[in-house]
Amino acid sequence: MTSSESTFVVGIDLGGTKMLAAVVDSHGQIYGRSKRKTLPKSDRQAAPDVVAERMARTVRDAVDKAGLSMADIAAVGASAPGPVNVDTGRVFRVVNLPKWDTYFDLGPVLSEHLGVPVYVDNDVTLGTLGEAAYGAAKGIDDVIGIFVGTGIGGGIILDGKLRHGFRWGAGEIGHMLNYHGTIKDIEHFASRGAISKKMREAVAKGKSTIVADILATRGDDRITSGVIRDALAAGDPVTQRVVKNAQQGLGLLIASVVNLLDPQCIVMGGGLVESLGDRFLEPVRDIAFEHFFLKDDADKIMIVPAALGDDAVALGGAVLARQRGGG
Amino acid sequence: MTSSESTFVVGIDLGGTKMLAAVVDSHGQIYGRSKRKTLPKSDRQAAPDVVAERMARTVRDAVDKAGLSMADIAAVGASAPGPVNVDTGRVFRVVNLPKWDTYFDLGPVLSEHLGVPVYVDNDVTLGTLGEAAYGAAKGIDDVIGIFVGTGIGGGIILDGKLRHGFRWGAGEIGHMLNYHGTIKDIEHFASRGAISKKMREAVAKGKSTIVADILATRGDDRITSGVIRDALAAGDPVTQRVVKNAQQGLGLLIASVVNLLDPQCIVMGGGLVESLGDRFLEPVRDIAFEHFFLKDDADKIMIVPAALGDDAVALGGAVLARQRGGG
Repeated sequence: MTSSESTFVVGIDLGGTKMLAAVVDSHGQIYGRSKRKTLPKSDRQAAPDVVAERMARTVRDAVDKAGLSMADIAAVGASAPGPVNVDTGRVFRVVNLPKWDTYFDLGPVLSEHLGVPVYVDNDVTLGTLGEAAYGAAKGIDDVIGIFVGTGIGGGIILDGKLRHGFRWGAGEIGHMLNYHGTIKDIEHFASRGAISKKMREAVAKGKSTIVADILATRGDDRITSGVIRDALAAGDPVTQRVVKNAQQGLGLLIASVVNLLDPQCIVMGGGLVESLGDRFLEPVRDIAFEHFFLKDDADKIMIVPAALGDDAVALGGAVLARQRGGG
Repeated sequence: MTSSESTFVVGIDLGGTKMLAAVVDSHGQIYGRSKRKTLPKSDRQAAPDVVAERMARTVRDAVDKAGLSMADIAAVGASAPGPVNVDTGRVFRVVNLPKWDTYFDLGPVLSEHLGVPVYVDNDVTLGTLGEAAYGAAKGIDDVIGIFVGTGIGGGIILDGKLRHGFRWGAGEIGHMLNYHGTIKDIEHFASRGAISKKMREAVAKGKSTIVADILATRGDDRITSGVIRDALAAGDPVTQRVVKNAQQGLGLLIASVVNLLDPQCIVMGGGLVESLGDRFLEPVRDIAFEHFFLKDDADKIMIVPAALGDDAVALGGAVLARQRGGG
């Protein structure tokens, strides 16, 4: 297959609630996007093959919107929110989707639907790849991506090479452990999910009237990144405390990873980081730097917010498609 | 430079108290060894150039003992117990040696002394490389070495490639952090140094008469790996407790590293592991496996004791010399 500036690839980001496809050229420019809910309203228990068929349609929609046809598409790169065998396109399982509790050959099935080669990788890995190709770590080939959401996911690029692991299990950065007293995953302290849980408990106990007020005003009892941002802005002491704990956890997590791997760049993503921005990252950075074992050139280690927002994973999928499939 | 079965290289392991050189053929066979104290008795404050001159003599002694001359030696691989720029042979510092508190160009200086190319890398990295080439991880190119001593050092080989880090700072595995309550390095719980310190405190407080007796019998108040082994064999409850804590710390450290990097093999080395053997590793392994996030094929991850003993680092130096210098 010859490489050409004019060929396009499609990246598709499969999440637990929605999917996003993007048609991308060789410069990372997006020519067409399409979104769809992951599961049909009529069937919340849909099996993986239903999800795959919806992914194929979403890819075709994005290609239509770009004014192209599938004949213009060299390859597709798809993400899955779970461990993936990148060589075969097999997704081991997707925890968030009820019927995807065993393996599914997403790559081959999508390829059958679309008539082009389809490559699959983990979503956080592709988000990191997207940021390294076109975002906050553009041009850097030594990047750890840390995406803070309900849990905490990690993507690893060392010396320009994605690290997938011996069992395709690398990058579970939120499941690095605390070993003093009770054993807990870092996710337990430092994820948006952990912050939300602690805030909800405080509301239930009547300890935070500010958060209760914000939820009442919004008419939605979910504690999202936006609620956390608003509660911080209103000076809610409970929120300040749990966010500070999370920042400490993330700072120490980064220091641990730097002391182990000494990467050039750490990209921090996810709704919470994007919502709170550098104000959230500043203390994380300070705590991390304070705990670097090697102090030499510590200021050359970048700890930066992700830049591509919702497009990061789809753009990473496009990079995967281009690297593996040409185009 | 042509590669030939008949050419030899020398690996030299520089420690805080002694150095060991070995002449090695392309199969990892050792033809001659030589040892020397790192610092001369007459000058405990000797500068790095004195140490380098002693290293050069130790290399020549080993070559003599192998019945060879320096003309038979293709290259030398030397270790240093500190961060090293492998491209230039510069050692940033050696914490254990009083006058080596700033950088020293060990590679170029040794090469000048010996008249052959000299390559330098961190000692734990070379120990891991030695075990991967000729020892417990023979033939495996995806290995994390964890060496438990006064501190805890790590060596990283991923997909056949040594990981040195952006600042030559990778592998400080003992400085991964605990983030619950007081912030402490893993070394603080899980090193032989930490075990010895806690045992010494117990002796000072009169809490462990067994350890006090062992020390009195030996006529030496240092709590070595041998003392720990004897105290365990005698059923000393204090020693059992602190060793159990260390095993838990090491098990969780391994689980954290596996959850992050998913390597095929973890090699555990250092005096304590070698002295206590698999009896020490069995609970470490159980705790690690229990905390793997990805359970699939968990039993395919090897957690094994180092096999090369005191020769590991020198053999790793030989591998480095062969990889970089030919021979």
